[in-house]
Amino acid sequence: MTARKSLYQALSDYAASDFYPYHMPGHKRNPAGGEMAEYHKIDITEIDGFDNLYQAEGVLKEAQLRANSLYGSDETFFLINGSTSGALAAIMTAAEPLDEILIARNCHKSVYHAAIMHGLIVRYYYPKMISEYDICDGVSAEEIGVLLDTYPEVKAVVVTSPTYEGVLSDIPAIAAEVHGRGKILIVDEAHGAHFGLSTHLPQGAIAGGADLVIHSLHKTLPAMTQTALLHVNGDRVNREKLRRYLCMLQSSSPSYVLMASMDSCIKFLEEQGQERFAAMRGHYVSFCEKTASLAHIRIGKMTRVSSKKHELKGWDLGKMVISVKGTNMTGKELYDILRETYHLEMEMAGETYVLAIMTLMDEAVGWQRLADALCEIDDRIEESAGAEIPAAGKKPVFSDRQLKGGMTLARAFHSEWEQIPMQKAIGRIAAGFINLYPPGSPIVAPGEILDETVIKRIEECRKMGLAVQGVTEQGEVVVVAL
Amino acid sequence: MTARKSLYQALSDYAASDFYPYHMPGHKRNPAGGEMAEYHKIDITEIDGFDNLYQAEGVLKEAQLRANSLYGSDETFFLINGSTSGALAAIMTAAEPLDEILIARNCHKSVYHAAIMHGLIVRYYYPKMISEYDICDGVSAEEIGVLLDTYPEVKAVVVTSPTYEGVLSDIPAIAAEVHGRGKILIVDEAHGAHFGLSTHLPQGAIAGGADLVIHSLHKTLPAMTQTALLHVNGDRVNREKLRRYLCMLQSSSPSYVLMASMDSCIKFLEEQGQERFAAMRGHYVSFCEKTASLAHIRIGKMTRVSSKKHELKGWDLGKMVISVKGTNMTGKELYDILRETYHLEMEMAGETYVLAIMTLMDEAVGWQRLADALCEIDDRIEESAGAEIPAAGKKPVFSDRQLKGGMTLARAFHSEWEQIPMQKAIGRIAAGFINLYPPGSPIVAPGEILDETVIKRIEECRKMGLAVQGVTEQGEVVVVAL
Repeated sequence: MTARKSLYQALSDYAASDFYPYHMPGHKRNPAGGEMAEYHKIDITEIDGFDNLYQAEGVLKEAQLRANSLYGSDETFFLINGSTSGALAAIMTAAEPLDEILIARNCHKSVYHAAIMHGLIVRYYYPKMISEYDICDGVSAEEIGVLLDTYPEVKAVVVTSPTYEGVLSDIPAIAAEVHGRGKILIVDEAHGAHFGLSTHLPQGAIAGGADLVIHSLHKTLPAMTQTALLHVNGDRVNREKLRRYLCMLQSSSPSYVLMASMDSCIKFLEEQGQERFAAMRGHYVSFCEKTASLAHIRIGKMTRVSSKKHELKGWDLGKMVISVKGTNMTGKELYDILRETYHLEMEMAGETYVLAIMTLMDEAVGWQRLADALCEIDDRIEESAGAEIPAAGKKPVFSDRQLKGGMTLARAFHSEWEQIPMQKAIGRIAAGFINLYPPGSPIVAPGEILDETVIKRIEECRKMGLAVQGVTEQGEVVVVAL
Repeated sequence: MTARKSLYQALSDYAASDFYPYHMPGHKRNPAGGEMAEYHKIDITEIDGFDNLYQAEGVLKEAQLRANSLYGSDETFFLINGSTSGALAAIMTAAEPLDEILIARNCHKSVYHAAIMHGLIVRYYYPKMISEYDICDGVSAEEIGVLLDTYPEVKAVVVTSPTYEGVLSDIPAIAAEVHGRGKILIVDEAHGAHFGLSTHLPQGAIAGGADLVIHSLHKTLPAMTQTALLHVNGDRVNREKLRRYLCMLQSSSPSYVLMASMDSCIKFLEEQGQERFAAMRGHYVSFCEKTASLAHIRIGKMTRVSSKKHELKGWDLGKMVISVKGTNMTGKELYDILRETYHLEMEMAGETYVLAIMTLMDEAVGWQRLADALCEIDDRIEESAGAEIPAAGKKPVFSDRQLKGGMTLARAFHSEWEQIPMQKAIGRIAAGFINLYPPGSPIVAPGEILDETVIKRIEECRKMGLAVQGVTEQGEVVVVAL
């Protein structure tokens, strides 16, 4: 719509001028600078006319204002250290050291890291599981209300919506519970930066009334990895304090390439977003038609209604949970076949499913190749004879089963620890995180007591070839020293 | 020397294959992805075969080993959130919350930020000034020893060497004082990533015996902005703890472009480093010959001997302190003339000097243009008639004059604050940082009492057009509320 000059264009114009750099970066835009010299052309430091991210008054202020205007929040900050830095800064701003916070147990590890570094007391909300797909359901607003009544000292609530697998929570209902009690609501919408940008997509957390919203631009939009946005709404959040933490948690030499990538992404969305999201909706419908006849593989449509008050409208077209639960194939096997036979690279493999991310940048061929491969594979799958079916009692890793706490998160983290074989760790207090990666939400958090069930489940995940972080190759874990 | 495949090459090869991405990033390497689509080609996430920065076992482990081998430290970590994340992680590892640390008062703000977030008690070493150039001298090993005897509870010492202006400290002597008392030495060598890589350059802090050394790759070497390395030596540092903090303080979606840039930089240094540093030495000598006849402008050769025990060998060829002290021109005026008349972009303007950074990527023309411009400008300069000379009593901003402390750093930071005009702030306790940017070392740190002299000096800097952070456009500062 606009014919504006992007930060990328401004940097390119400057690179083409006769200005000579007696400043950082050390590559000096010299074309002899090795195989990545092309990338150096627009990579500058904070020279005159190119502003300063942490005290933005010029081009970077304008770029952030454009992002702000697209999303409709009260204020928007560019993040060059990913959603990680947004989650850390948001939580450190919303709660003082030693305060209490309430977080959904399936939050990203950065939320736990903020709690450790800030010395917070953490209360958990345990999401229910969607047994049909072995993934976490959204967060119930009613239960958040009950928890806030139980823990009235809580200063802020952190939920992830959509989840990594695309499950939505009812943000307006949660916001009502949280704000009604005078607390701050932080929504990790890292996986939903595309929400609210088209009528074909669900409403986002900004419109839903959250105070702080974190968006990974790179996850579902055309921006470079490690780029993200932090949005603020209303006056519950001290913005000056937020600015301080953003400056503390991010490089004092922010990459102009990453910042240009964010601005170019916003420009692309302004110019082509509507059209491309409409096309995406078309691809999605065709894909559903093509895969409607699958006999064994199931494609999840992740609309969940987690509140009695509101029916959630729409679902995340970009998340495909492709389930083989109840068949003789595991998620990892499906992942490997798609990768090795078809050269289709999935986002991740779970026990009973694979996850594919689709965006407005997927053309018809991307949807087609996946649909074709799934149809072929489906013909070869059989229903499981029993032993391979995840039995009713065999709970998935993120169950609503709560591990017993033996120590607070921060205290366990800062304790003396020892590394011992998993089998010997039963009954001991975890001193580190154990998580499946991606997405990196903890199966075990420091302070929790390791029990037989969780150790068994972790061993099963490792046997299946899933990436388990926090366990050494030799099968050792860290526990608080006796 | 080696004909190895770089991470960049591996990413390029993968991009050229027929593998289709059903994963992040959302740009999907689609060439229609806006004006920065070229940058998307090698921008991936942690897919099979491309390792994980925080649990590196494959290509990223190998890339870090190559950097390690070039620098000769015991272990090397890639940083994608700049030296900032290295300083934060190093300090949080070396000291437990509530511990004491000793830092040089001219340390980068990230050192202060670590102290705040970790709740540390901070003891300061106040560097002397080099009055000839109005810049900080190096750190005296003897005085560090005295301070450690005064504050025996200190766990770690942090010094910056070289400084932003290229001044060296005697790291072997400082290491002896620190290690002799069982403490950890952290050297912020962000500006000296090129040290030790050629006989034409000074020895670096790794060879000097520091336990933790932070290198900005982008400042003086051909790597992208925001890339850095953290080196560990010996067994005083708990490396497992260090890994934890690196994972907590950096994006969980590290940019492969930034990581590839680091690896390509190391490859470039392996292949062309020796030759290019030798050429740089040649350019430097020619530059000195050409500027030998300057009558007013002085070019600083920043060798300082800050210890009685060792004479420091060599100096930083890459830092040119171009002084106009004692003339009728200010640093900012010289900076503006170089920029506007000659299109030569300096690194920064100080009150009485400008700073130019030269690297192995500057060809003869870069040295020549600067020498020619300085010769022309020098002809127009006059010695000052008096009023414009920084008088003997007019101390530079980083004096060895210590501001009185009214409160600890962390406590002042976390206090309720108010924003008031600078003139009304005399006698009040600062609640925020005030610094010249670059380089971003604090003139005033939280907890210090603002006095008339410092307020006057800050106002002078602002009048000169220098970038002062921590003061609003209206001239207001934040102080602890009464």
